[in-house]
Amino acid sequence: MNYKMMGRFIGKILIVEAVFMVPAMLISLWEREFAVVRAFMWTLAAILVVVGLLMWVCRGSKNKFYAKEGLACVGLSWIVMSLLGCLPFFLSGVMPNYVDAFFEIVSGFTTTGASILPEVENIPKGILYWRSFSHWLGGMGVLVFLLAISSMGGNDNGYTMHLLRAESPGPNVGKLVPKMRKTASILYLIYILLTVLDVFFLLLGEMNLFEAVCTAFGTVGTGGFGVRNDSIAGYSPYIQNVCTVFMFLCGVNFSCFYLLLLRQFKNVFRDEELRLYVGVTVGSILLITLNLKGFYDTFSETLRHASFQVVTIMTTTGFATTDYELWPGLSKAILLCLMLIGASAGSTGGGFKCGRALLVFKSLHRSVQKIVHPQKVQVVRVNGQPIEEKVLQNTNAYLAAYVLAIILSFLLISVDGFSITTNLSAVFACFNNIGPGFEMVGPTCNYAMYSNFSKLVLAWDMLAGRLEIFPILILFSRTTWKHR
Amino acid sequence: MNYKMMGRFIGKILIVEAVFMVPAMLISLWEREFAVVRAFMWTLAAILVVVGLLMWVCRGSKNKFYAKEGLACVGLSWIVMSLLGCLPFFLSGVMPNYVDAFFEIVSGFTTTGASILPEVENIPKGILYWRSFSHWLGGMGVLVFLLAISSMGGNDNGYTMHLLRAESPGPNVGKLVPKMRKTASILYLIYILLTVLDVFFLLLGEMNLFEAVCTAFGTVGTGGFGVRNDSIAGYSPYIQNVCTVFMFLCGVNFSCFYLLLLRQFKNVFRDEELRLYVGVTVGSILLITLNLKGFYDTFSETLRHASFQVVTIMTTTGFATTDYELWPGLSKAILLCLMLIGASAGSTGGGFKCGRALLVFKSLHRSVQKIVHPQKVQVVRVNGQPIEEKVLQNTNAYLAAYVLAIILSFLLISVDGFSITTNLSAVFACFNNIGPGFEMVGPTCNYAMYSNFSKLVLAWDMLAGRLEIFPILILFSRTTWKHR
Repeated sequence: MNYKMMGRFIGKILIVEAVFMVPAMLISLWEREFAVVRAFMWTLAAILVVVGLLMWVCRGSKNKFYAKEGLACVGLSWIVMSLLGCLPFFLSGVMPNYVDAFFEIVSGFTTTGASILPEVENIPKGILYWRSFSHWLGGMGVLVFLLAISSMGGNDNGYTMHLLRAESPGPNVGKLVPKMRKTASILYLIYILLTVLDVFFLLLGEMNLFEAVCTAFGTVGTGGFGVRNDSIAGYSPYIQNVCTVFMFLCGVNFSCFYLLLLRQFKNVFRDEELRLYVGVTVGSILLITLNLKGFYDTFSETLRHASFQVVTIMTTTGFATTDYELWPGLSKAILLCLMLIGASAGSTGGGFKCGRALLVFKSLHRSVQKIVHPQKVQVVRVNGQPIEEKVLQNTNAYLAAYVLAIILSFLLISVDGFSITTNLSAVFACFNNIGPGFEMVGPTCNYAMYSNFSKLVLAWDMLAGRLEIFPILILFSRTTWKHR
Repeated sequence: MNYKMMGRFIGKILIVEAVFMVPAMLISLWEREFAVVRAFMWTLAAILVVVGLLMWVCRGSKNKFYAKEGLACVGLSWIVMSLLGCLPFFLSGVMPNYVDAFFEIVSGFTTTGASILPEVENIPKGILYWRSFSHWLGGMGVLVFLLAISSMGGNDNGYTMHLLRAESPGPNVGKLVPKMRKTASILYLIYILLTVLDVFFLLLGEMNLFEAVCTAFGTVGTGGFGVRNDSIAGYSPYIQNVCTVFMFLCGVNFSCFYLLLLRQFKNVFRDEELRLYVGVTVGSILLITLNLKGFYDTFSETLRHASFQVVTIMTTTGFATTDYELWPGLSKAILLCLMLIGASAGSTGGGFKCGRALLVFKSLHRSVQKIVHPQKVQVVRVNGQPIEEKVLQNTNAYLAAYVLAIILSFLLISVDGFSITTNLSAVFACFNNIGPGFEMVGPTCNYAMYSNFSKLVLAWDMLAGRLEIFPILILFSRTTWKHR
């Protein structure tokens, strides 16, 4: 392992974090929340000390970097970033328990949106801003950001590939252009464009600027932290629909937007993952609308709530406009299944990903075909392109890791004694970076009642889910740390 | 497809079914349940007509038989066997709804033990016997029985292999001896021996002969239909412990017993699947016993209930000595996870199987190793033997099919509007051939409240779970039925 280079890398990530903390501190200063300003200043000081130490200890080493270093580096940097990023919550006294603060910031960075706060309207503005901004930073990935702005020295395509692959969601990283740095820049440009558009449309709906910016961070990053106690329920139908549209857009693979910019419309419309994503979304909205007949006063209200909830769960955002706990069984079952699928690969959403579901389904279909025609050579294709066996194997390994991680976490948090539905949906909601689950972690509830141990397990789930397990799993493997 | 041969095969299976129905009819006659006797006679007549027609229509064809025919044949014969086997329930008026009767017999043959009967103590003896006997027949498999008693004409090793593989549970059929027919005979001899021993020990506990035989069928077949309303709860602790031991034994891979008979003790003790099975069982019993501290009066009572419930769920039997619904959260969570794992491959138990879990875990471990050492060639080994890549691929495909089938069934039965835990555990309990689940399908409840549609979905789950998905899945694939 190239520890020195990993250390320097984590240092750089922390600098990015510190820089992005400054606006939050300025907002606190403007709002005269001096305790919060002090908390941010102490945090910045702590980050600078850590960065200084890392840079000094890890000075000078070669640029050699392999897949395992890439994965371990991404896993470690997210953990360190969270350990320090939660300090403002803790030091300002908003969350007197450090584990709570850690849970909250991990929930933010991983765009989960699960909260331990019973109410948010009395929280200082600077803290609320940092909480929502963590969604934006985690949505596209802080390493991707770092790659977009700095050249990382020398021949960067070699190892930036490993890093981008480790942080970007999906079974197969789509290089938009041959240079990784340019790919990262394009992704962030699209991301910023979507954020600005979202803020614009929210302002049109007469939202104030602070709420519009925070809501946009939560929407575009598919996070789910809101700035009001009733999430999005208190806003006008127009604002709810704007959120629905932008959540939906941010659940699309960003390479589709790039293709749109290049005017390759045909390729976008033929994209199998996009079709599956749109199909599942539209199908679920229709089924739930039918199932909810008579539940709301008007058809348009039913359709609005149905589409909002389907999109918010499918894209793993986790906002709420209504308490879906009260919906009939079928609608709740559909939502539970949507929790598992998640958004598209290469989007800001979490979950298993539509693209991966497509691969699992196609490889299963091939297995059946192989029984019927054992002699025939069969290749799995997506969008007409043959898929490498290695990718299929990794997808199946991912499914296995996914199932095992969920079972293990479910067992661990069951020690607290809550109901099966509560615990299972809590694990689903955290692992897939959604936020709300069912029963005691439903859309009107929060995660405060869990023990510190369970909160750490769920935080682990959020990280493992956001980084797609392997960067976190590899940190626990003996062979990773063994000298050869 | 070799339709004629498949037809003749299904005919033979039905003859076996008819022969085994005669004892049930004689019991009814002895007990003077004449309505039931008539029901059995009509059923036998119907079976003979179907057999006659099949034999006549399907006369004369070659003995060529491939994997797909084997799978389709097994799938079809189980369905036909159930469609006719439920007639006594229906015609005797015990279950006036044909779908209920079908659900009950599928539950019997697949050794699930899920019932739609709210109470069983007033049911005619002949019906009770046939209901329990269906577990015994389905436990080891009716095709395996057929293979054991008849030579199936000519060079049988060619296609009997496909049939045995399709009906026997587990990722890899262990041929005990080169000849398939002898393998089948050995399996049935061990099975009969276990049944006789179980009846003997139950009789020692002062159970009457009828109850002892029926309970032994349910135990050794890991089924779970009882002859009393409170399942095993009303019997003495001695009888409960006898059931625990025999359920546990029948969850062991039967090839281990064969090795014991050959005095290859070392191979048995080194068997990795057996170790996993024993480890999970003992570990779960210990954890639940600790978790239940103070729940029952004495330690020995706690240990007895804990071990009975762990073994009954792990082996997918589904008897009950206590209402585990009232247990604390962790204990329930452990039981839910045990439902998923199931017993060993090559046993009479259902579920995902320990052997398959072992393969999934090992192949996941290899994936992590491959990231760390991309150049190293890594072979997955079980008991020191390298596992073919094909087997690993099939295991992963099975996991995918398993997850998809569970999600789809869960969605379909959610239309009835029961709670998430009820529906999810109903699907788990049926798919893994256990029987009782949680909440409204808990150990003190039954499946009567589900709609006919949901009952058919759950019956499909039981069949798919017992036959390990592919024999049923292949019936729904277009290419299976296409002429080339």
